[in-house]
Amino acid sequence: MELVFIQDMMKVEDTSNTLRVLIATDCHLGYMEKDEIRRFDSFQAFEEICSIAEQKQVDFLLLGGDLFHENKPSRSTLVKTIEILRRYCLNDNPVQFQVVSDQTMNFQNIFGHVNYEDPHFNVGLPVFTIHGNHDDPAGVDNLSAIDILSTCNLVNYFGKMVLGGSGVGQITLYPILIRKGTTSLALYGLGNIRDERLNRMFQVHHKLVSIGCLDNLLEDSVSIIGLNHLIPQTPHAVQWMRPQAQEGCPVSDWFNILVLHQNRIKTNPKNAINEHFLPRFLDFIVWGHEHECLIDPQEVAGMGFHITQPGSSVATSLIDGEAKPKHVLLLEIKGSQYRPTKIPLKSVRPFEYAEVVLKDEADIDPNDQASVLEHLDKIVREVRNLIEKSRKASVSRSELKLPLVRIKVDYSGFSTINPQRFGQKYVGKVANPQDILIFTKAAKKRQSIEDKIDDSERLRPEELNQQNIEALVAESNLKMEILPVNDLDIALHDFVNKDDKMAFYSCLQYNLDETRNKLNTEADKLKIEEEDIILKVGECMEERVKERSLHSKGNMRITSSLQNLQVTRNYGAVRKRP
Amino acid sequence: MELVFIQDMMKVEDTSNTLRVLIATDCHLGYMEKDEIRRFDSFQAFEEICSIAEQKQVDFLLLGGDLFHENKPSRSTLVKTIEILRRYCLNDNPVQFQVVSDQTMNFQNIFGHVNYEDPHFNVGLPVFTIHGNHDDPAGVDNLSAIDILSTCNLVNYFGKMVLGGSGVGQITLYPILIRKGTTSLALYGLGNIRDERLNRMFQVHHKLVSIGCLDNLLEDSVSIIGLNHLIPQTPHAVQWMRPQAQEGCPVSDWFNILVLHQNRIKTNPKNAINEHFLPRFLDFIVWGHEHECLIDPQEVAGMGFHITQPGSSVATSLIDGEAKPKHVLLLEIKGSQYRPTKIPLKSVRPFEYAEVVLKDEADIDPNDQASVLEHLDKIVREVRNLIEKSRKASVSRSELKLPLVRIKVDYSGFSTINPQRFGQKYVGKVANPQDILIFTKAAKKRQSIEDKIDDSERLRPEELNQQNIEALVAESNLKMEILPVNDLDIALHDFVNKDDKMAFYSCLQYNLDETRNKLNTEADKLKIEEEDIILKVGECMEERVKERSLHSKGNMRITSSLQNLQVTRNYGAVRKRP
Repeated sequence: MELVFIQDMMKVEDTSNTLRVLIATDCHLGYMEKDEIRRFDSFQAFEEICSIAEQKQVDFLLLGGDLFHENKPSRSTLVKTIEILRRYCLNDNPVQFQVVSDQTMNFQNIFGHVNYEDPHFNVGLPVFTIHGNHDDPAGVDNLSAIDILSTCNLVNYFGKMVLGGSGVGQITLYPILIRKGTTSLALYGLGNIRDERLNRMFQVHHKLVSIGCLDNLLEDSVSIIGLNHLIPQTPHAVQWMRPQAQEGCPVSDWFNILVLHQNRIKTNPKNAINEHFLPRFLDFIVWGHEHECLIDPQEVAGMGFHITQPGSSVATSLIDGEAKPKHVLLLEIKGSQYRPTKIPLKSVRPFEYAEVVLKDEADIDPNDQASVLEHLDKIVREVRNLIEKSRKASVSRSELKLPLVRIKVDYSGFSTINPQRFGQKYVGKVANPQDILIFTKAAKKRQSIEDKIDDSERLRPEELNQQNIEALVAESNLKMEILPVNDLDIALHDFVNKDDKMAFYSCLQYNLDETRNKLNTEADKLKIEEEDIILKVGECMEERVKERSLHSKGNMRITSSLQNLQVTRNYGAVRKRP
Repeated sequence: MELVFIQDMMKVEDTSNTLRVLIATDCHLGYMEKDEIRRFDSFQAFEEICSIAEQKQVDFLLLGGDLFHENKPSRSTLVKTIEILRRYCLNDNPVQFQVVSDQTMNFQNIFGHVNYEDPHFNVGLPVFTIHGNHDDPAGVDNLSAIDILSTCNLVNYFGKMVLGGSGVGQITLYPILIRKGTTSLALYGLGNIRDERLNRMFQVHHKLVSIGCLDNLLEDSVSIIGLNHLIPQTPHAVQWMRPQAQEGCPVSDWFNILVLHQNRIKTNPKNAINEHFLPRFLDFIVWGHEHECLIDPQEVAGMGFHITQPGSSVATSLIDGEAKPKHVLLLEIKGSQYRPTKIPLKSVRPFEYAEVVLKDEADIDPNDQASVLEHLDKIVREVRNLIEKSRKASVSRSELKLPLVRIKVDYSGFSTINPQRFGQKYVGKVANPQDILIFTKAAKKRQSIEDKIDDSERLRPEELNQQNIEALVAESNLKMEILPVNDLDIALHDFVNKDDKMAFYSCLQYNLDETRNKLNTEADKLKIEEEDIILKVGECMEERVKERSLHSKGNMRITSSLQNLQVTRNYGAVRKRP
C-alpha cells in the first residue's frame, strides 16, 4: 500500500470516515513522586495529554507503554492516575468506531471486551495501551500495573504476550480491528519483551523473509481464507495475524499500525530492535521506550512504513535527548491516507542541557578552582536566561515551574568539584540543584569505540551497585560458570522488584535451551561424539559468559534489593534505562 | 429510642420503607495469597458475601474494615478485588434509598459523592466501608488501599478521620444520612485509630457525659438548629454530629448505627475501646476487628444499644475464636425497629481447634515420645473425623477444601516435638500441615494474671522479632530514655510498611504533647518552679516508658523491615493482631 501525505486531503472535514487518534508514550506516572518540587510533573503532563484528546475530539488515545514509572505503583500514584482517567475518559461523548476483531484475543482480562462496550460504564474517550519495561507484567499471575486500570475498565490493555513454545518462545500478534465508516485500522500491539529475546525471535522471522517464502504465503493464502480465520504470516517465533479479505474490503485496505516499546538506539545490535526486522505490510509504527521526541514520522528506506517516536512526556534522565521540546501526535487516518500533526506539551517542566570541556575553555586554570566555579556558574546563568527568554516568548502553564538544568562537564586535566555544594546557591531557582553538574572524562571514552553508552547513565549512582549485585548472586549459590551473570542480574531484579517467583527458573531454562540449541546445530555440522558433549557444554557456557560480559555495561538495569529500598526512599529515582 | 425485636413485624413485606443491609467485616483480601492451598480463601469468602447481598436483594453492603489484609495490596489482590466488586456492584438494579447528608463531608475523595449517583457508572449494589488497622491510611497523602477502590467508584469509603487539634487530637463524625421511604438511618463510621489514642479521646468525652452537660446540650439545641446545620454533641475530642430535626421527622426518629474497627477484648484497658464510652444515642453498633463471630446482637446494659460483632470471613489466626462458624448479618430496618438475621458463610475453609494438656492424659509417658506422637495423631484424626461428619451433614462449597487443624498442646513436664515433622503425614490431608501443633506451657502463664495474651499469638514466629526491632531502634539513634520503645516500634512499623515519612515525627510530637500536658496539670497542682521542669520532664518520660513496657507484650504489632521482606516471601503471614 502506498502512503500519501496530503496536508489538505481532509480540508473538507469528513469525520464519519476519519479516525482521529492521539498518540503519546512513556508518561512514567509517579516519577519522582517523593520529590517536593517534581512530584506532580508526570501527572500534569498526562492530564495535559488527556485534555488535548478531549479538546481535539479524538476517537481514542493510544499509549506506547511505561504509563507507570514503577512496576508496583504507590497507592498515591494509582489514585492520581485513576482520578485523571475517570475525569477524562468517562463522559457522554459517543464513541464513533467499532472493534470488529475477536476481543477476547485482544484483551486479556476476564471481561474480555473493549471498555466502551461495557454497559455499566459511560466511556467517552477510550484509551488503548501496551505495557513498557517499567510496568511490564510480573509475578505468578503475570499481572502488570496496567491490569489494575484495565480491570477498572479505564484503559484497554493490549499487546500482552504469552511467551509460548520452547526455547526462545513464540508470540502471536492479534490486531485490534477497528472500523470507522470506510476506514479500517488493524492495530498491532507488542508490549515490552527483553530486547535480546525479542531480537532473537525476529531473527528467526527475518531469515524467512529474506528467502522470500513469506510474502508468497501471505498473498496465496488471502483468497482462500474464510471469514473467521486470521492468517499467520509466519509459522515461526513471531506470528502476525492478518485480517481476512472481505467483500468490499480486501486485506490491503487495512491500515496497519504497530505499537511497540523497545530499544531503538543500538548500544550493541543484540540490545535493540532493528527496524528492518519488522514486516513490510505495516504502514505506521509507534515506537515507545525511547525518551527523545522524534515525533515527525520518519520513513524507513525500503520498508514502506514510517515510524513516529513520540518520546516521554516527562524527563526521567537529564540527558540531551530529553531536553528537546516534548510533543504528542494527532494522527488522522482516512482509508489508506493519514495526516500527522504534532502538538507541543505546555505543562512540561523546562529543561536545558549543556556540555562543557574544561580544557577547551580559555578563561580557566586547572590550579585555580575558583575560576572553574565561576565559569560553571556563568554557564548555569546563561542556561537559565535562555529558559527565561523562551518562557517570555510562549505563555504556558510551565511558566511557574522551576527549570531543570544539567551541565555535563568534561573535567579532563581538572579535578571535580562537589555538585551538591555547587548547587546550594540554586536552591529555589533550579528544580534539581543537587545534580546540576555531572562530571565525565571524554578522552577515556573515545578510546573504546564499542562502548557507546552515555557517561551520564553510568554516573548515576542509583543505577547500579555492582558489588551488591555480586554479593547477592554469590549468596544465591548460582555460579557464574554456569549462567551468565548478566542474565542472573535480570533474574534477581525481577525476583526482588517484581515478585517474580519464577525468575531464576526462567533464567536457567532459557540458558539451558540456548545451550541445547547451539549444541544441536554444532552436532549436525561436526558430528560430535556423545562423549564430547559434556566438554562442549562447558565451552559453550564459557563462551556465552564472555559474550555477555562484553556487553554487560550496555544493558545493565539492575538494582539490588537493598539498593531498591534506598532508592524508594530517595525519591523514586530511575531504576532502568531510559 | 426503644428498640424492639419483632420477628414478624415485617411479615407483610413492606420493602418501600424497609432498609435491607448486609453486614460483614474483616475480609482480609489477599491473606495467604502466596500459599498454594489457601491463596483464594479470602476472595472466595468475599465473593460469597457479595452473592448473598445479590440474592437477598439488599439495599447496600456494609463492611467493618480490613477489607484488605495488606496495607499495600499486591497487583494480584487489587485485580481480584476489583473484579469481584465490578461483577457484583455494577448492574441494572435500581438503588432505592437516598443519601441526604452533605456527601462531601461523608466521602473524602475528589469526587465527593456516593458512588451510585455518579452518572457514568451503573451501580446497583452500593458498598459502604470504613478502613481497618490493616488497610488504614498512611503516607504523605494519607491514602488507604480502600482509596483505590473508592477512586474507581466501586466502594463508598467513609469514616476516614483527619486527626486535627493539638495533643491527643480531635475527630468529628459526620453520619451518612440515608432515607428509604419513612425509614431514616444515620450511619456513623469510625475507621481504625490506634486504640490507645482513641481511648484517650473517648475518656475526655466520657468525663463530659458523666457530668451530664452533654445531653442537655444536645436536647436544648435540637429545636433551634436550622436545616443546614448539624449539632456537635461535644465540643471536645470526639464530636458526634447529629441530624437536625425536620418536619415530620424529629431527631429521635433517626436510627443510629456506628461502624468501628477497634480492639474490644481487653488485654489491658488502654488497649481496647470500652463499650460504655460510646454515646447513648446510638442504636446499633457494628464492631469490626475482632475475628470471633459473635454476630447475634448483644445488648449493652444501661447503654440502650446492641452490638453485633460479625467476625472475620477468613481465619487469619488459628485460635479458638476463629474456629467458630463464620456468618454475616442481614439487618432489616423499618423506622425504629430492626430484624437481624444471621447467614452462615458456606465457602469458608473448615477449621477445627482443640487443646490438650499432656500431663492430664492417662495413656502417655513423658519418657516415651512415641506415645506422645501417637496420642497427638489420635487427636488430629478425631478432629478430622469431626470435620468429615459436619461436611456430610451440610452440603456446602467448602466440601472440597482441605481443613485447617490446630492443636494447642500444653507440654508442661514433657519435651516439645518438631511440628513440621509431625505435619508431614498430613500433607494433602490438612491445609496447614506445617503448623498443626503449637506448644505452650500453661502453668507459667497462670502465674501472671495481668498477662492475658494468648500463647498462640506469642509463639507465632512471624509476629515479632524483638531483637531485630531493638537493633533497628538503636540504629535510628532514638533513645529509649526519651521515647517509649513501644511507640517507636509503631513508628518504625509505619515507616517501613506504610511509607509514612512522618511516622517518627508524629511519634515525637505526640510524646512531647503528652509530656507537656502532664507537666501543665502537675504544674497547676504543685506550682512547680521553672528550674524543676527539666527534672520533671525526665521523670515523666521515665514513668511513661515504664508504663508502656508493662503493656508492651499486649499491643505489639510490629515486624522489622527485614522480617517483613521475609514474611512477604513466606506466603504473607499475619503481621498484626488479630
